[in-house]
Amino acid sequence: MNLKRVAIIGASGYSGEELVRLLLNHPHVELVAVTSRQYAGQTLAQVFPKFAGHSHAKTLHFTEPNAELLAKQADVVFLALPHGVAAEYAMPLLDAGRMVIDLSADFRLRSAAVYKEFYAHDHPAPDLLDKAVYGLPEIYRDEIKKSVLIASPGCYPTSILLPLIPLLMAELIQPSGIIADSLSGVSGAGRKAEADYLFCECNESVRPYGMPKHRHLSEIEEQLSFAAETRVTIQFTPHLIPVNRGILTTLYLMPEKSFSDAAEMNALNEQIAACYAAAYGDEPFVHLLEGKNLPDTKNVTGTNVIEIAWRLDPRTGRLIVMSAEDNLIKGASGQAIQSMNLVCGFPETAGLV
Amino acid sequence: MNLKRVAIIGASGYSGEELVRLLLNHPHVELVAVTSRQYAGQTLAQVFPKFAGHSHAKTLHFTEPNAELLAKQADVVFLALPHGVAAEYAMPLLDAGRMVIDLSADFRLRSAAVYKEFYAHDHPAPDLLDKAVYGLPEIYRDEIKKSVLIASPGCYPTSILLPLIPLLMAELIQPSGIIADSLSGVSGAGRKAEADYLFCECNESVRPYGMPKHRHLSEIEEQLSFAAETRVTIQFTPHLIPVNRGILTTLYLMPEKSFSDAAEMNALNEQIAACYAAAYGDEPFVHLLEGKNLPDTKNVTGTNVIEIAWRLDPRTGRLIVMSAEDNLIKGASGQAIQSMNLVCGFPETAGLV
Amino acid sequence: MNLKRVAIIGASGYSGEELVRLLLNHPHVELVAVTSRQYAGQTLAQVFPKFAGHSHAKTLHFTEPNAELLAKQADVVFLALPHGVAAEYAMPLLDAGRMVIDLSADFRLRSAAVYKEFYAHDHPAPDLLDKAVYGLPEIYRDEIKKSVLIASPGCYPTSILLPLIPLLMAELIQPSGIIADSLSGVSGAGRKAEADYLFCECNESVRPYGMPKHRHLSEIEEQLSFAAETRVTIQFTPHLIPVNRGILTTLYLMPEKSFSDAAEMNALNEQIAACYAAAYGDEPFVHLLEGKNLPDTKNVTGTNVIEIAWRLDPRTGRLIVMSAEDNLIKGASGQAIQSMNLVCGFPETAGLV
Amino acid sequence: MNLKRVAIIGASGYSGEELVRLLLNHPHVELVAVTSRQYAGQTLAQVFPKFAGHSHAKTLHFTEPNAELLAKQADVVFLALPHGVAAEYAMPLLDAGRMVIDLSADFRLRSAAVYKEFYAHDHPAPDLLDKAVYGLPEIYRDEIKKSVLIASPGCYPTSILLPLIPLLMAELIQPSGIIADSLSGVSGAGRKAEADYLFCECNESVRPYGMPKHRHLSEIEEQLSFAAETRVTIQFTPHLIPVNRGILTTLYLMPEKSFSDAAEMNALNEQIAACYAAAYGDEPFVHLLEGKNLPDTKNVTGTNVIEIAWRLDPRTGRLIVMSAEDNLIKGASGQAIQSMNLVCGFPETAGLV
Repeated sequence: MNLKRVAIIGASGYSGEELVRLLLNHPHVELVAVTSRQYAGQTLAQVFPKFAGHSHAKTLHFTEPNAELLAKQADVVFLALPHGVAAEYAMPLLDAGRMVIDLSADFRLRSAAVYKEFYAHDHPAPDLLDKAVYGLPEIYRDEIKKSVLIASPGCYPTSILLPLIPLLMAELIQPSGIIADSLSGVSGAGRKAEADYLFCECNESVRPYGMPKHRHLSEIEEQLSFAAETRVTIQFTPHLIPVNRGILTTLYLMPEKSFSDAAEMNALNEQIAACYAAAYGDEPFVHLLEGKNLPDTKNVTGTNVIEIAWRLDPRTGRLIVMSAEDNLIKGASGQAIQSMNLVCGFPETAGLV
Repeated sequence: MNLKRVAIIGASGYSGEELVRLLLNHPHVELVAVTSRQYAGQTLAQVFPKFAGHSHAKTLHFTEPNAELLAKQADVVFLALPHGVAAEYAMPLLDAGRMVIDLSADFRLRSAAVYKEFYAHDHPAPDLLDKAVYGLPEIYRDEIKKSVLIASPGCYPTSILLPLIPLLMAELIQPSGIIADSLSGVSGAGRKAEADYLFCECNESVRPYGMPKHRHLSEIEEQLSFAAETRVTIQFTPHLIPVNRGILTTLYLMPEKSFSDAAEMNALNEQIAACYAAAYGDEPFVHLLEGKNLPDTKNVTGTNVIEIAWRLDPRTGRLIVMSAEDNLIKGASGQAIQSMNLVCGFPETAGLV
Repeated sequence: MNLKRVAIIGASGYSGEELVRLLLNHPHVELVAVTSRQYAGQTLAQVFPKFAGHSHAKTLHFTEPNAELLAKQADVVFLALPHGVAAEYAMPLLDAGRMVIDLSADFRLRSAAVYKEFYAHDHPAPDLLDKAVYGLPEIYRDEIKKSVLIASPGCYPTSILLPLIPLLMAELIQPSGIIADSLSGVSGAGRKAEADYLFCECNESVRPYGMPKHRHLSEIEEQLSFAAETRVTIQFTPHLIPVNRGILTTLYLMPEKSFSDAAEMNALNEQIAACYAAAYGDEPFVHLLEGKNLPDTKNVTGTNVIEIAWRLDPRTGRLIVMSAEDNLIKGASGQAIQSMNLVCGFPETAGLV
Repeated sequence: MNLKRVAIIGASGYSGEELVRLLLNHPHVELVAVTSRQYAGQTLAQVFPKFAGHSHAKTLHFTEPNAELLAKQADVVFLALPHGVAAEYAMPLLDAGRMVIDLSADFRLRSAAVYKEFYAHDHPAPDLLDKAVYGLPEIYRDEIKKSVLIASPGCYPTSILLPLIPLLMAELIQPSGIIADSLSGVSGAGRKAEADYLFCECNESVRPYGMPKHRHLSEIEEQLSFAAETRVTIQFTPHLIPVNRGILTTLYLMPEKSFSDAAEMNALNEQIAACYAAAYGDEPFVHLLEGKNLPDTKNVTGTNVIEIAWRLDPRTGRLIVMSAEDNLIKGASGQAIQSMNLVCGFPETAGLV
């Protein structure tokens, strides 16, 4: 198979760095360009000594981002840029016939109005919103294969949507009253030199932030509404936890069917198990935990896997679902590559195990 | 003022060690005995080099626990022992006329039946349950002053009860459907040499555990039921977070009164503010956060303070209350000393600031 | 005793914050002013929620630094400013008859030429160098008592000088060939929003830096040369370690007297023990560890204590001395207050235990 | 190429787990057996949920260790066992014609007497010592290829030997007076449930231990003596640092040739650069850092790479060499697989990038 030529615009942040790592080791692609205003002119090996062992890293230089030039160099372009900026690059690349996989929020929503409500500026390219596919392969695999503009989901949304969508589609849970309590590692804040993310401000600290109206709610609720076929509004509280990587989400849900004794509870439990098995039993990157195991971010960091477990609580009648993922891989760069694999016709797990 | 003589039975765990630290520096007491089967015969300074600077620490030896002997040596005895064991020591000490401040779960419940349900063995001293006062000074100050057997609350319960009790008593929130999502540092597990709590198993790990029926639910729900004057059942999910100390609790609540516009929301917000101000405005150890501040465990570790903040969410109609405390101080040893100060007639903040 | 009025110029960094904490709780002083360009106009409680419990913290506002005004308000002024800036404030304060305790490097050296060599700019107030006393109380107690300008030592220097000076003065070790290998927590870098000190860059990272010619070498070598009465040049390698606080220093030394059998080794060991006992046996803040104990930063964080232990190695003939301190307390703010206590005639340990 | 069948005896510790991870993904081997007394009967996926994504992990069960049975099942057997125990298993496996790669200390030394001195018991199989090859591929590549018993080096030794051996062989440094100061992550202590390695005992702690006579000195000094062709005794101080993985070693060395001006220093610097380039310029797993870069464990964790950098210090005349490695990979399991690749005729980097 010929190697696809891939480029990364914005390769110096944490997601970009993780894309570099995964693409350098991907069997079916060649990384031909990486851009960074800050590091233009330096090699990958100079900026990231950890890649020095890859022969490529000593010769590949960071360049200034230039969409026209990159359109000539690469078949597939990843955008690891802030929201609002990504759309600018997407347009000329798509016009030139390139595949674009965007890790920002710019193309995740169908509605430019909702975008403006949550991101506080007009959408930079509203015409493209209809062309984009939300890059959650376990849900939109077929659409992704046919698309040239993939909006790769956010880290929190991935951890919330994958556990919830099958339950909503199967009408096993009520679409109202959903609560998502999420705990994220600090890399989720990006490589920004802000005092809030200094080691001494995060280490030995646990804190909520960005509540009650975090930006990720927009894509979470849009996708949940599609699944439930009704408008879904959820409660979402993110917390910052002193780990480099990982998101642990705890979902508080109310089953559609109440259970009043052990037999009913077991029956419901089997329905949930069957629902998840049907949805994810063959998915390579979704681990449904069995027995007494509960999700733990340390099981998934460094991988493209999301772990899911659930418990019914006979005391409250609630269903608690928990998930763990690596925010930079299944929550960002790994999932983006999973989409690229689908778009390019590679095995879906290529470069991800 | 004459110094009260105090002893600690079980002084080698994390709570015991923190009691030692606080009592060595307390202006109105003399630490006359510390017990530990493991360290009997060694001095405080040998076992805990961090206390070596206290003149006392080089001469005070750990002894085997002996209630009769301790009853002669001390006026006040702290029990920092596992549940089931503490009750054994409490009886002879109370018979000898000593004040007992128990940090275990043994005397926190009124009901021996609930104790058995949650702790899986018969209560070792059911006759004493009526004599014990639940040692939450902000709620039971007057009762504590008159008692000789204080059942100092658990760490999770403190972080949940202090934010909830005033709201329930003022009927500002519904007593049903309460969710408590808590994040705890690893010292909460005690100084047990178990593989689950090894550095490499906890560092770079975030995980739920002990759900959906954690033992602390028994005392939480009993106290909430007293406050609400109705039987309260809550959802509680504890998580283990890689910090030494600190509990961050996020509470998901439904106001009694719904709000449908900004004016109603502001009115409710002011009611909540007034409720908390009335309950805690003069409390030295409860900080009600203002403005944009949210609780952060790093603000309270090393102190006897609990931070509380809240937000109304107009999108969901819910009230979110968050608290942060040091699990070993306000959640254990500091609060126990606060009770001792009340029992002994010392200033309530003595030795705690 | 009348309370002394104290002010802190530059109270928003880590050392400044620690000065605030200690001075708010000091029995003999009143904190009358704190300055910070960034936070001018805000109260202590607003900037540092952790101090909200102190009545003072809700009324004391940060102001712009103004030496003349502060000279009227305070009897003692702490400077917690970058080097080069501190000297500017010291001059008018001294002229106005105030006591100045400087935590920067500006007055630690006797030689303006050495200052320029290491700090890369001319000394801003060379005339003051002779008036300053190096604020290491265990070594310069008498001089500090008589001075009005204290140059409080750096964090690394304290951890190196206290273990070495008695050995050099007693001629127990050779003054040449000394190696100091130091490990520091990240707070040593200050509260600077630089990418190198972000949580994700420091957590799960161990790295040397600033070698082989770190700025602190200038004051270390000057002080060691005074003790040895000969010019001392040492090897010093600092490393950054993912803890908030603490410095662990390992010193590789060659005894003046070699030892070739167990008897000679024991004899030398006793000489070293006697030397340290004479130097520090009565010092409240120096812990000489006994038995198998080795220094551990967790024993000293939050305290003004430095732990010291040593081992002779019969295989190599070397003496290894190890120390542990809290870089922000004994290595900065605590030691500065220890000096203030001496200058003001307070008990030396006031506010520090 | 036919897959080689490999087994791991003692697969539940940290090194064993890392072997499992690497071998499951190795292109030329099939993992046919894993043993663990503790987990016998459970599948890999049950014991280590993180491996659940490998089809193999759901069917491969841990068994009790049985050398005779394993000799029938596997072509290559890894021993990840405590010292003293490994030798028992090696003998029957070698007798049965299997290749043995031992990660314990049992076959690292040539001298049974030195083994007894450092490990405090008689060597369990002294006859095998001559047959074993020290598994440091960069130094003993040819010998490894021909051997059937590989003694894979310890984690500290690897971090010390790779930087030192070329310098000693080229006679660029003096073989006497060498100091190695090492900082290790907590996984180096293994998955032992001991209180010293609990999260709260290691987090926010930095401490030396096991000095001045750590067991690893025996193999370090034996190998250095071979390289220097004279008996080498070094000073070695290990420290425990709160990271999961990684060893950072700082070596204090004296060049054979002194340098008194910049020209001489540059000349020596070039000799050192040339020496390292000759030794390691083509090595895939040794990164010689250039420019201002210094080793950082975060660059190498998760990889089989060792980073090396050095500085000459004109103030002291010393050479400082620093290295960083992942203690569980280049310091243990990765290096063992590198040896396996050589023994089996696979590409040396197979399964390691």
